[in-house]
Amino acid sequence: MAKGSKAAAGRIKERDARTMKKIEGLAERVVKTSMSGKDPSIDIPTRSKSNTIWNKKRGILEMGDSTSERPLFDLKTAKQFMQTMLHASTIKDLIDAEKTSSLRGVFYKAKHTISGTKENTFDAQEESDPILEDLEVTLGALREELHVFAENRGTLVGNITIIDKGDEINARKQGSGGWGIPSIVEPDVIQFGKCEAKFVLHVEKGTVWNRFNEDRFWEKNNCILTHGAGQPPRGCRRLLQRLNQELKLPIICVLDNDPWGHYIYSVIKQGSISLAFESSRLAIPDAKFLGIRAKDYRECELGEAVKIDLTDNDIKRANEIAAYPWFAENKAWQREIDGLLKNGFKMEVEAMITKDISYVTEEYVPQRLKAKDWLD
Amino acid sequence: MAKGSKAAAGRIKERDARTMKKIEGLAERVVKTSMSGKDPSIDIPTRSKSNTIWNKKRGILEMGDSTSERPLFDLKTAKQFMQTMLHASTIKDLIDAEKTSSLRGVFYKAKHTISGTKENTFDAQEESDPILEDLEVTLGALREELHVFAENRGTLVGNITIIDKGDEINARKQGSGGWGIPSIVEPDVIQFGKCEAKFVLHVEKGTVWNRFNEDRFWEKNNCILTHGAGQPPRGCRRLLQRLNQELKLPIICVLDNDPWGHYIYSVIKQGSISLAFESSRLAIPDAKFLGIRAKDYRECELGEAVKIDLTDNDIKRANEIAAYPWFAENKAWQREIDGLLKNGFKMEVEAMITKDISYVTEEYVPQRLKAKDWLD
Repeated sequence: MAKGSKAAAGRIKERDARTMKKIEGLAERVVKTSMSGKDPSIDIPTRSKSNTIWNKKRGILEMGDSTSERPLFDLKTAKQFMQTMLHASTIKDLIDAEKTSSLRGVFYKAKHTISGTKENTFDAQEESDPILEDLEVTLGALREELHVFAENRGTLVGNITIIDKGDEINARKQGSGGWGIPSIVEPDVIQFGKCEAKFVLHVEKGTVWNRFNEDRFWEKNNCILTHGAGQPPRGCRRLLQRLNQELKLPIICVLDNDPWGHYIYSVIKQGSISLAFESSRLAIPDAKFLGIRAKDYRECELGEAVKIDLTDNDIKRANEIAAYPWFAENKAWQREIDGLLKNGFKMEVEAMITKDISYVTEEYVPQRLKAKDWLD
Repeated sequence: MAKGSKAAAGRIKERDARTMKKIEGLAERVVKTSMSGKDPSIDIPTRSKSNTIWNKKRGILEMGDSTSERPLFDLKTAKQFMQTMLHASTIKDLIDAEKTSSLRGVFYKAKHTISGTKENTFDAQEESDPILEDLEVTLGALREELHVFAENRGTLVGNITIIDKGDEINARKQGSGGWGIPSIVEPDVIQFGKCEAKFVLHVEKGTVWNRFNEDRFWEKNNCILTHGAGQPPRGCRRLLQRLNQELKLPIICVLDNDPWGHYIYSVIKQGSISLAFESSRLAIPDAKFLGIRAKDYRECELGEAVKIDLTDNDIKRANEIAAYPWFAENKAWQREIDGLLKNGFKMEVEAMITKDISYVTEEYVPQRLKAKDWLD
């Protein structure tokens, strides 16, 4: 077993004990209520847009205080009550076994026909995932703390050593493949070792990441290079946040010049409505948007080939994003989105190849970094 | 620079010189024809079902000898002729610069408005990718040899050391994340170091891979553990084939019990029609299918919860796959597909969790391996 594995195991045990206490607390409350002759019920914090608050001071989206009751003896909520208890029980089993499971695994674990009936506990995973989110907010425990993981997605390489379950990953020596960012990156599983890097460059796609890795951008510019395969999953966002908070590394994003790129940045920075209850663990309010910028077509003297016409939906999305409170109050971002709309076209990072194969890694990004020319 | 990098660079140079010669040969033929007063034209091998041959002896799909002419002075083919030359020129630039590019990058590099006209060289990437495949078959050079990569996909962990561009990747120490399998894994980039592993277990999905990695299956069973995020991309298939051919490791697949799982296996084993010209570099005729098997519902005493009803499309696909020549002549596979159809339901690997969290890693797969109970 690798050095450090024991310490890691100790930290995992501490976390698990905390989560277990929360699950037992939930069960005890239900039992107590029943024994006292009252109808058992659970209060579930509401995960909706109306209960999402923009905390301007902290610079993140947060969940409000609204909750909804889920009583057992109500035809509308009885099934959900049962499902919540089933999943809580599965999670207890996972923690007892010191194992983790996928969302689909948890669904299968709980799925069965209730004996003496033709009723299934769950029919589809779409029913199961929201119940797990209910448990997250009710227990105040992250999905990762409930031992549930999603698909691993995203890759990292650069001037840092990462300790992953006791294994030392030298991210400076990951060749062309890179280290796959796991779904669960909590401090008891993933720790940071030696780090010379001064910032993180986060790019949108794996193909762009390949260009930067092949040109050894992270070595020449002393940084860490990550991608999240599009909208980065929780594991990738959480890792970026930890690199930002614990190692004080700025997170600098290079995304496409389109509403999707702007939205990815918005989620990295402020969090999303659907995961507002997790913003304090995921959002990075001081993340920077380096590019691609609307002005680049002119400033970088790009040709016609980079232009992709905006669709009606792009224009609609751009206006929606411009109205987000954190963008609405930000003059530079208003100009940026206005620039996109005035251009009438979008541009992908990969379009920079029309200047030169390595223009983006050797000129564009280094120049913008030097000039601190980015959006906050 | 890491030890071995120089040797790797030497090998890359040799390969590049070979590819360059092929591109120059193509250009020279066009020039010679023109100079001799004839109309320039190129012969493109035909990539279609009708030109795909099942080579029973080798156990792989192969491309036949049919070609089609692509003359410059023909309204139907003039644009494609120009596009082929453009991409050949981009590839020459990539090789000259010792750099690689994504499919999208190559598209952008060639995309422009032809001066004095309103005609674009390429309008969409869908036009560009097939032209690259034309070049692959015409030059007899893999896309990887043309310096073009796809998205990296798939992950590896296990008892092997991999040398990736001179970096030593100890796949025994990759924590929960694993090493991301690159898109280009040719011998000049990726070499194999010390390997204790006796076989490769290839699973379908990242979430299943997580279960096996968490249970340290590769350590307990002395193997390499890979997944390809669904239908494995070329990089993953090529790496599996190299592990099979060069290190003589059996490739044992654990896929879902449904037509999609059967199809993934079929592609890993025999190749696909669309990439038939690459089968000799990608196909693994002796790959095994360990499960999930149709008989498992009964043999493993699984419950109702694992069943997912077959759709009409599933039944159609199952019958199509049963008619593939390599399955049609294989009695065990005929029984297997028949079993799926008779069951009337499909089963996912993740459904095994209904027995126990680690049933699949600690009982199911080890028992089947011991009994050599798999399909060939």
